[in-house]
Amino acid sequence: MKHVLCGKCVKCGKEYAAVPDLTNCECGGILEITYDYTYIKTQLTKEKLAARTERTMWRYRELLPVEETTEPTPLRVGWSPLYEEPRLAKELGLKKLWVKDDGLNPTASLKDRASAMAVAKAREAGAKVIACSSTGNAASSLAGNAAAAGLKTYIFVPSRAPKGKVAQLMTFGANVISVQGSYEETFELSKAAIDKWGWYNRNAAINPYLSEGKKTVSLEIMEQLNWEVPDYIAISVGDGCTIAGLWKGLKDLYAIGFIDKLPRLISAQAEGCCPLNRAIESGEDWYPMEENTLADSIAVGVPRNADKALMAIRESDGLVVNVSDAEIMAAQKLLGKMCGVFGEPAGVTGTAGVKKLCEQGIIGRNDTVVSVVTGNGLKDVANAIAACGEPISIPNDMELLLRAFAEKGIVVE
Amino acid sequence: MKHVLCGKCVKCGKEYAAVPDLTNCECGGILEITYDYTYIKTQLTKEKLAARTERTMWRYRELLPVEETTEPTPLRVGWSPLYEEPRLAKELGLKKLWVKDDGLNPTASLKDRASAMAVAKAREAGAKVIACSSTGNAASSLAGNAAAAGLKTYIFVPSRAPKGKVAQLMTFGANVISVQGSYEETFELSKAAIDKWGWYNRNAAINPYLSEGKKTVSLEIMEQLNWEVPDYIAISVGDGCTIAGLWKGLKDLYAIGFIDKLPRLISAQAEGCCPLNRAIESGEDWYPMEENTLADSIAVGVPRNADKALMAIRESDGLVVNVSDAEIMAAQKLLGKMCGVFGEPAGVTGTAGVKKLCEQGIIGRNDTVVSVVTGNGLKDVANAIAACGEPISIPNDMELLLRAFAEKGIVVE
Repeated sequence: MKHVLCGKCVKCGKEYAAVPDLTNCECGGILEITYDYTYIKTQLTKEKLAARTERTMWRYRELLPVEETTEPTPLRVGWSPLYEEPRLAKELGLKKLWVKDDGLNPTASLKDRASAMAVAKAREAGAKVIACSSTGNAASSLAGNAAAAGLKTYIFVPSRAPKGKVAQLMTFGANVISVQGSYEETFELSKAAIDKWGWYNRNAAINPYLSEGKKTVSLEIMEQLNWEVPDYIAISVGDGCTIAGLWKGLKDLYAIGFIDKLPRLISAQAEGCCPLNRAIESGEDWYPMEENTLADSIAVGVPRNADKALMAIRESDGLVVNVSDAEIMAAQKLLGKMCGVFGEPAGVTGTAGVKKLCEQGIIGRNDTVVSVVTGNGLKDVANAIAACGEPISIPNDMELLLRAFAEKGIVVE
Repeated sequence: MKHVLCGKCVKCGKEYAAVPDLTNCECGGILEITYDYTYIKTQLTKEKLAARTERTMWRYRELLPVEETTEPTPLRVGWSPLYEEPRLAKELGLKKLWVKDDGLNPTASLKDRASAMAVAKAREAGAKVIACSSTGNAASSLAGNAAAAGLKTYIFVPSRAPKGKVAQLMTFGANVISVQGSYEETFELSKAAIDKWGWYNRNAAINPYLSEGKKTVSLEIMEQLNWEVPDYIAISVGDGCTIAGLWKGLKDLYAIGFIDKLPRLISAQAEGCCPLNRAIESGEDWYPMEENTLADSIAVGVPRNADKALMAIRESDGLVVNVSDAEIMAAQKLLGKMCGVFGEPAGVTGTAGVKKLCEQGIIGRNDTVVSVVTGNGLKDVANAIAACGEPISIPNDMELLLRAFAEKGIVVE
């Protein structure tokens, strides 16, 4: 990989050769993949990119840590739509708002970007088996992307993972271990098994390539905005890997001169589980929290990528915002009703944060915002029905229909 | 619309001006939109198409029945991936096999194509409200596409519609009426309400524009195959509208000279509800059947678009195949495990049909086949779990993990 320099520890600065099965630094710190931007600038221009027909994350190959000979992974990951939402912008009181619907990835979440990268690197490493622990989406995305590539998977999920995600795993033929306990315990059992059997490791805070997959979401956002930088990009935060990846993509684009400034990040967490935002607010170290939220994908009491996430929020002069489960459910309804976008609870938490910051007057009519929806609402149907209620239920009878409309206060136009 | 001639009854041949709120012929027959292909040939070439950056169904505008001034609808409908599947082709004994994953549309089914068209035509008609009855997917796609466009919806679903689809409807803010009865009764109540209130009608066998949206699936397949025509295209069949639309797209491409022959269709229905295939097999008229299948989207005992569907299958010299629920579930697992594609039961029925025809030796090693997956498995999680089983469930304990692997016969690599 001519364009990749090394994996560098974010804690102690130690550098490692960028081999495919790179894990953490010996000091325990997480590695960051560093690039030769001078070389990349000679290889990639905006014009060259614009001429490409490939509409997947692999269109950004010069910025991705893979060998030139590594094939794109089989599923169509990335190039999710970025919708401009003038009606919702008006409702919230923003100058401009875009929604990036990453729930339209093949297994219905942003995590497909990291899993596709894991599959590409596992192939480079000659591995036949990949494993991970996950609150659900990393798991289902790994299972799907690996299945399409003909690789086996062992996947550890906490027992609270919603049925939709478990159904995906089973359908994709993964070996699934549902761990009766927290995400932390799930992570520990997966680590023990990976150590024991030497599987290729897709745990996001261990494998430094995964953020490099995730960063393609910001590469796309910027290209879709024709390189005009918004004031803010909002995203939900759990483990910390996704916001770190998002930031990495932006910094890469800045380093190669594709954008001339950096947006501020908005880190949205659930009130019931916000260890990273609490650390930013207090200016102190993070410490563990309970996992009290219905937004299962970001219910991470012990974030595994705290260092990179906190660095990203601070470097960007970012905002943090914590939202209640009720605010998350309201955001889910709002996105559905006004945008036709159906996000899972964790997926819409970024939008819930944007709404709250607008209501608090912290952002407003002069601001342009991109809100990333990280996962599809179909993964967690029970919570959607709880948020939005049940339909009218009647036999085939016009009289009963009229009565039901009257009872519900529906005035027919 | 310079390129549209009229709506022509498939039964009596009567022609109607192509106004936006066109419905059935006065004889009860269904209309087909007819085009001025000579004019279209002067407007659209393969080269012109290849140069387009728009990756939605609206890239085929010259072949769609909308005004030049009609804007594309907001959600990103169409241009779903067409995956070549050499491993599955080998497993089934086919020369080549492609899977078109239409479950990656914005509301997760092929029906988004028809609903986006309905929204475009409703806007042309100046309507503010759209209504339909549906087994589920037409409903959720209409709700989503209409919400994004700022239109209101009234939607009638049979009470058996899976929770995933109902959750989508409620999230998209539709007025939902769950009818305690069959699809037939659901259709009747919707018709009565539409007649009463004059809503824009998105019922697929009434509104002739909807097949024109659906046909974009075959326009895409052919462009994605670089205009090389496969021997067969397989799809699941319920109401009949989808296979009719698929066929219309192929005929359009043939008429303007983009393809030099036509593929044969494979019409796959559920054994427990196959009135159209039965009519083909017997050579007689179709007559109603019970709706006995878990593939809810194609459980249509009284198909509303029988005429067009039967015509399509016959014109294409098509094959018909009926599959059991067990075969549908097996196809769901097979697509998941080998392709990383998660289809809903009705969505994978086409693939189940292909598998069965291979096993029967009716198609085989000399044949190239495209199988369309029409909807996402996340819409019906309960059936997926029934098909694929439950995961291993243990606490964080390596000993228990080893024991569980041994019990399940999992040999770790």
